[in-house]
Amino acid sequence: MAKELKDLTKRSEDYSKWYNELVVKADLAEQSAVRGCMVIKPYGYAIWEKMQQTLDKMFKETGVQNAYFPLLIPKSYLCREAEHVEGFAKECAIVTHYRLKNDPDGKGVVVDPAARLEEELIIRPTSETIIWGTFKNWIHSYRDLPLLINQWANVMRWEMRTRMFLRTSEFLWQEGHCAHATAEESEKRTVQMINLYADFVENYMAIPVIKGVKTANERFAGAINTYTIEAMMQDGKALQSGTSHNLGQNFAKAFDVTFMNKENKPESVWANSWGVSTRLMGALIMTHSDDNGLVLPPHLAPIQVVIVPIYKNNAQLEEISKAVAPIVEKLKKLGVSVKYDDADNKRPGFKFADYELKGVPIRLALGARDLENGTIEMMRRDTLEKQTLPIEGIAEKVAAELEDIQNSLYQRALKLRNDRTYKVDSYDEFKEKIEDGGFFLCHWDGTAETEEKIKEDTKATIRCIPLGGEEEEGVCMVTGKPSKRRVIIARSY
Amino acid sequence: MAKELKDLTKRSEDYSKWYNELVVKADLAEQSAVRGCMVIKPYGYAIWEKMQQTLDKMFKETGVQNAYFPLLIPKSYLCREAEHVEGFAKECAIVTHYRLKNDPDGKGVVVDPAARLEEELIIRPTSETIIWGTFKNWIHSYRDLPLLINQWANVMRWEMRTRMFLRTSEFLWQEGHCAHATAEESEKRTVQMINLYADFVENYMAIPVIKGVKTANERFAGAINTYTIEAMMQDGKALQSGTSHNLGQNFAKAFDVTFMNKENKPESVWANSWGVSTRLMGALIMTHSDDNGLVLPPHLAPIQVVIVPIYKNNAQLEEISKAVAPIVEKLKKLGVSVKYDDADNKRPGFKFADYELKGVPIRLALGARDLENGTIEMMRRDTLEKQTLPIEGIAEKVAAELEDIQNSLYQRALKLRNDRTYKVDSYDEFKEKIEDGGFFLCHWDGTAETEEKIKEDTKATIRCIPLGGEEEEGVCMVTGKPSKRRVIIARSY
Repeated sequence: MAKELKDLTKRSEDYSKWYNELVVKADLAEQSAVRGCMVIKPYGYAIWEKMQQTLDKMFKETGVQNAYFPLLIPKSYLCREAEHVEGFAKECAIVTHYRLKNDPDGKGVVVDPAARLEEELIIRPTSETIIWGTFKNWIHSYRDLPLLINQWANVMRWEMRTRMFLRTSEFLWQEGHCAHATAEESEKRTVQMINLYADFVENYMAIPVIKGVKTANERFAGAINTYTIEAMMQDGKALQSGTSHNLGQNFAKAFDVTFMNKENKPESVWANSWGVSTRLMGALIMTHSDDNGLVLPPHLAPIQVVIVPIYKNNAQLEEISKAVAPIVEKLKKLGVSVKYDDADNKRPGFKFADYELKGVPIRLALGARDLENGTIEMMRRDTLEKQTLPIEGIAEKVAAELEDIQNSLYQRALKLRNDRTYKVDSYDEFKEKIEDGGFFLCHWDGTAETEEKIKEDTKATIRCIPLGGEEEEGVCMVTGKPSKRRVIIARSY
Repeated sequence: MAKELKDLTKRSEDYSKWYNELVVKADLAEQSAVRGCMVIKPYGYAIWEKMQQTLDKMFKETGVQNAYFPLLIPKSYLCREAEHVEGFAKECAIVTHYRLKNDPDGKGVVVDPAARLEEELIIRPTSETIIWGTFKNWIHSYRDLPLLINQWANVMRWEMRTRMFLRTSEFLWQEGHCAHATAEESEKRTVQMINLYADFVENYMAIPVIKGVKTANERFAGAINTYTIEAMMQDGKALQSGTSHNLGQNFAKAFDVTFMNKENKPESVWANSWGVSTRLMGALIMTHSDDNGLVLPPHLAPIQVVIVPIYKNNAQLEEISKAVAPIVEKLKKLGVSVKYDDADNKRPGFKFADYELKGVPIRLALGARDLENGTIEMMRRDTLEKQTLPIEGIAEKVAAELEDIQNSLYQRALKLRNDRTYKVDSYDEFKEKIEDGGFFLCHWDGTAETEEKIKEDTKATIRCIPLGGEEEEGVCMVTGKPSKRRVIIARSY
């Protein structure tokens, strides 16, 4: 067993430490020299690229087009939408100068005080302001609508406490920004995108999510309504995995974006925005991985199958390689990404541990005795179960097994979530049970005060008002006031 | 003819104005509210995405992996490599603060003076410093090498005079950063990448390039050698389209990146870096387009073929649509991207002009009379020539025609370059002819002084010392000193 693997902290000992170690040891990311910013390493980036490509295709199928808007936003833009600036403008990276000069007192360079900007520029924490400032020129008539734009970009929020992927000062994301002629159309698109996110997270990431609406308190700054998907991590905490915001006419009014409607009357445009980020990488890691390392759902694994030869000499390796070649070819034909690792500077045991750590869904191992018997050993990363199988038909077997792993991971995560979701009606019981994590379905009186009290008492927040949840008469577990439906309360990342 | 089209300035009147107008009118990009930064519009971004996807695939085929490094670089990092800071650190965006606060004197927000950074952060103008600061942790032994990394990212250089795509403060690019165990391997990779760029630019962008080496003066800051590809625009100016730098051990030494070589001795790592940017969009536009608008090489056109129905009533439209459906299907099978534009709110004439302006390589038009005759009209955007052809077999014809257009565009650009490339031995003749643009093959004595004098006298620079050029004894056209080969001199973007 490789040294790195033995060193991995167990989840039961310290879940948070396990996560931080795993991110580094599985070669996903590492801290950079810049406070709160990470380096995404090639293996981590390859997973993110698979997510990007899948999402990008899904967006385009709904008519969305990509574009690119400036990184820097004039300070005055942020102030145009009153709620928006309250929510965003405080902790951000501010560009004040545009030139360095040689230090007159010695070595190095200093900021040139003569090169001060007239108006400071903010590194985008999100791009509603700059985009709606631009949409003003693009939209004149109802014929220009809908305008369905997405951008893949880096953004920056000066976070005080950071954790790789989950909360970093700089992160990568996509932000969709749509403009519509009617409130109905805009609401429809807002819902369409939260459904698209749920589809992606469930079917590619194998993570079950609860779709819901945020309370007024937790809404995006400037939105009239925020939809969210919430996932449960293995420690019972919630992770907000994607959001879609109905912005009403707020940004159109702030940036004076009007169009001539079909009746030839000027009207403010209806807006929505929606995004997911590298935070999804954190969700992926925390949902499926175990004490042996990363566990990846096959639909997002950069390497789905690794084949390791076990040999004593070159003659044996040659024989094995001959037998492996048609398997590799067949797997590729079936659309499976496969790696044959015949590197001779690492022992099989080291390779096994390394691929386990990196979450490769299936490992095949082939030795001299297997060759004689016409068999091959298959190990599933999710269960760590080994099976000896005939070489004949192994490619088809592997392809089917990958789908089974994808499905099993989802079912396992769903079971965990169901097992740890509780209907609770007593505030005392809630306060006790929340200490062990989980999702709590509770009645709430709908007021910000009660929401605030729950947060102060327990550090838990209302994650969402679930969509499609049944109406149910009840009373708020805190105040006893009437309530019509249960909300989901949990501690969160 | 559409109004927008009629308004396009002719190249012969004002080439520069023609370019600026075309970028906006063809919906490629526009100026943003932030000085020197552009918005890349969906149509322009779709072309850039095709470039990205093609290049990314080509990189990966050579073993390169993508990763992501922080946007912000500590000021002290830039100073580590002495030549690098001289070349780069002066004009850049500097982050000095990390918080805004409500203006105590009234409306809006101001920079919070209490939130001043201890060390200023620079928005990356290029990432050698932050990447080599990271590579230190990744490289220990020769077994870790080569390390072949690429990043797709935005970068920022505070340019004084900007032009969309050609020179903007923020731009998109890819930057490759490789680490090798030997000088030979690193040099080999440096050359491999300039060859890859030339392959891409010639075969996808249909732009002929001259591969060469930059003079010491024009080298990348911190490189021991810079390779370049130089293309000629229609006005006879050169455009540097891609560069690949052999960095020797400069960055490894500056960031203390050593490895144990096969003899188990510590050694500094050998480095190279290479990049192309959205500047390529400028090259694409300026090489092929004409007074009617954009001309796109089929290999990069988001829409390769547009089909426009010409009809008087709905019954006719229905008939035409029925005939078009199998053509669309066949074209898609042949891998051709096709759009059937049956929008009824624009007249055929408007559509024709619009697709011409946007450079769609082939336009098919189908009317009621065509249907009777079993014919269809095909127009090539590059020649504006129309042909009436049988509907039977039109998809195959179009697919072949696209390849012919791709090839014709390249040949046309090559002929223009050859016609405007001159061997000149007299400095007086050079000074006279350079006024009309073109590439000049001249003898140069190899000194920075002479290079500087040519620039001062004529605003022309030595674009490169061509690779594979024949040796030829001669004398410098300026100083009469001996020279062994001709260099390429031109005015440039």
